[in-house]
Amino acid sequence: MKEALRLALKGEGCTSPNPMVGAVCVLGGRIVGRGYHKKSGSPHAEIEAFLDAARKGISLAGATLYVTLEPCCHTEKLTPPCTDAIVASGVSDVVVGTIDPNPKVSGKGVAKLRKSGIAVRTGVLERECVEINEFFNKHVVSGLPFVILKSASTIDGKIASGTGDSKWIGSVKQRKMAHRLRKKVDGVIVGINTVRADDPGLDVRLVGGNVRQPVPVIMDSKLRISPKAKIFSTHPRSIIATTESASPIKAKRLSRLGAEILRLGSDSTGRVSAADLLRELGAMGMCGVLVEGGSRVGACFLREGLIDKVVFFYSPRIIGGDGVSMIGDLGKESIKEAINIKNIKVRRFGDEMMIEGYI
Amino acid sequence: MKEALRLALKGEGCTSPNPMVGAVCVLGGRIVGRGYHKKSGSPHAEIEAFLDAARKGISLAGATLYVTLEPCCHTEKLTPPCTDAIVASGVSDVVVGTIDPNPKVSGKGVAKLRKSGIAVRTGVLERECVEINEFFNKHVVSGLPFVILKSASTIDGKIASGTGDSKWIGSVKQRKMAHRLRKKVDGVIVGINTVRADDPGLDVRLVGGNVRQPVPVIMDSKLRISPKAKIFSTHPRSIIATTESASPIKAKRLSRLGAEILRLGSDSTGRVSAADLLRELGAMGMCGVLVEGGSRVGACFLREGLIDKVVFFYSPRIIGGDGVSMIGDLGKESIKEAINIKNIKVRRFGDEMMIEGYI
Repeated sequence: MKEALRLALKGEGCTSPNPMVGAVCVLGGRIVGRGYHKKSGSPHAEIEAFLDAARKGISLAGATLYVTLEPCCHTEKLTPPCTDAIVASGVSDVVVGTIDPNPKVSGKGVAKLRKSGIAVRTGVLERECVEINEFFNKHVVSGLPFVILKSASTIDGKIASGTGDSKWIGSVKQRKMAHRLRKKVDGVIVGINTVRADDPGLDVRLVGGNVRQPVPVIMDSKLRISPKAKIFSTHPRSIIATTESASPIKAKRLSRLGAEILRLGSDSTGRVSAADLLRELGAMGMCGVLVEGGSRVGACFLREGLIDKVVFFYSPRIIGGDGVSMIGDLGKESIKEAINIKNIKVRRFGDEMMIEGYI
Repeated sequence: MKEALRLALKGEGCTSPNPMVGAVCVLGGRIVGRGYHKKSGSPHAEIEAFLDAARKGISLAGATLYVTLEPCCHTEKLTPPCTDAIVASGVSDVVVGTIDPNPKVSGKGVAKLRKSGIAVRTGVLERECVEINEFFNKHVVSGLPFVILKSASTIDGKIASGTGDSKWIGSVKQRKMAHRLRKKVDGVIVGINTVRADDPGLDVRLVGGNVRQPVPVIMDSKLRISPKAKIFSTHPRSIIATTESASPIKAKRLSRLGAEILRLGSDSTGRVSAADLLRELGAMGMCGVLVEGGSRVGACFLREGLIDKVVFFYSPRIIGGDGVSMIGDLGKESIKEAINIKNIKVRRFGDEMMIEGYI
């Protein structure tokens, strides 16, 4: 199953809206077939593993299939259900990492295999097999993307000096790690103030490998974004979330630059509703998004309880209280009301640190 | 030398204004005497180790003495110079961790031993032997105490909610670690606003062992402190740093509660000069002090470059930008001007973290 997990992760950032899945066929104590789900539309991991064995001319009669996620049994997709292919393959045993949270599968895949006389064991390395698909697991159940809030601050929690200077708080190594995070998600959300202040590319640059660029999503209630903003030249497609009050002429002009204009509801302060935006992005098939800032946008998602995970980078510097706080105002009156972060992971690299945790 | 270091640390928090020192006598590959400097006025570590060997009836002729700090050779103290005692003991070899930075010793102790025909090796586990006495090392050279800035904040760098609530950001475990820090220093500095808001005892409560309480030092330019403040009941002696403009009547009243009133210069904002305060505390023999807050007091020391080390505790919570920043305003206009923290140490305990570093 460890090998199947390793294979599954090779699809990272490419399978959305499908989950990452890895599969391994074992015969006589030897691995005879390996496969993983490469991207949406490609064969599922089990099929890839069977094809791998077939290429080697190996019959799978009596073999054991290890697969990180319960095999699918529904016929809504173009690909036929994996359960049928498994039965046809001749494998006698299937070991499953975790049950598919997709309500259309969710135990039915396992039931179908058992009914066909295949011995099935579930829950092997379950925690790991669940964790690799936290994006998919949320999206398939709620229709909403999994939301990661990221920031890069000093150890006193500031993302910029009082005058707005933020280049560069973090090292190149830290920025590489941040780009690796971008590589995993379908969309990167920032506010118009960040675009105006930093004009970020919001693309994955500093890491190699098979990169699928995330779609930049700008929250811009009054469509103040410049047509010269860097995101339009770095991305063929972008999303601008705005309100009904935004100028139709400006909208048309931005559309020509590849921008999809989403007119959404506004919150009490007249800004784009973060909850509405997530619903739209989820409906587009986005399973994971990254909220990159600024501090006001992050606070707006946190206030509405829309963040699933935080990834905070810290650099060994002190800016002081007149710097810009990493999170905007939340209106918490006491420590008891503070947002608690759970399952903390701390990682140190050089003199910098990363804290990950869940809300 | 490792054993000598271990012994030295037994004197932690008790030797000021002297350094922590440990010593071990080795004869025929066996440790025959152990000693450490227990407190100012008690015998030095070497003498303790010799006494230990003597108690066992062992002659030290031909033995090797391991000592973490260069033996003293001056006669200004009540205790005679250790170099004389070493020569008299009969040991043939001395292994020294580090040279004494005290300008009255600083190599002269080693020279005197060599002149007496004793073989001396220096610089064994030097880094460790220097580090244990960072308080003493600074004080003996500059006359100023070593200054540690401590804070306990959320992971977004806030020490209280916007309304001032700060109880409790950290766990009991974290507060114990903070008390262990208090135990090491001679004085704990806070501002009058912290006294008025939290009325802290500033004593060492949560840790056991041989505790010498640090002296509370309150920065209170206008002598606004209440005679009912908890520090007066928890400490027989306290120091209130104020300015010339403070009321003599109030000063007299506070003196009766054990408060020593220091009238110092004021900075451009009319507050007590942090630099003047440190000079006074150093002159009183304080080798290490802890600045515990609030954020304005910490910033005032940082702005004037008076902090040597920071110890920041973080709890897994988010308060938001309207909370109180862990460090007050520093007026840094760019990231380049930010204060860099070096030699970072990160420690995790439960879901909390501690970052230590030097400026």
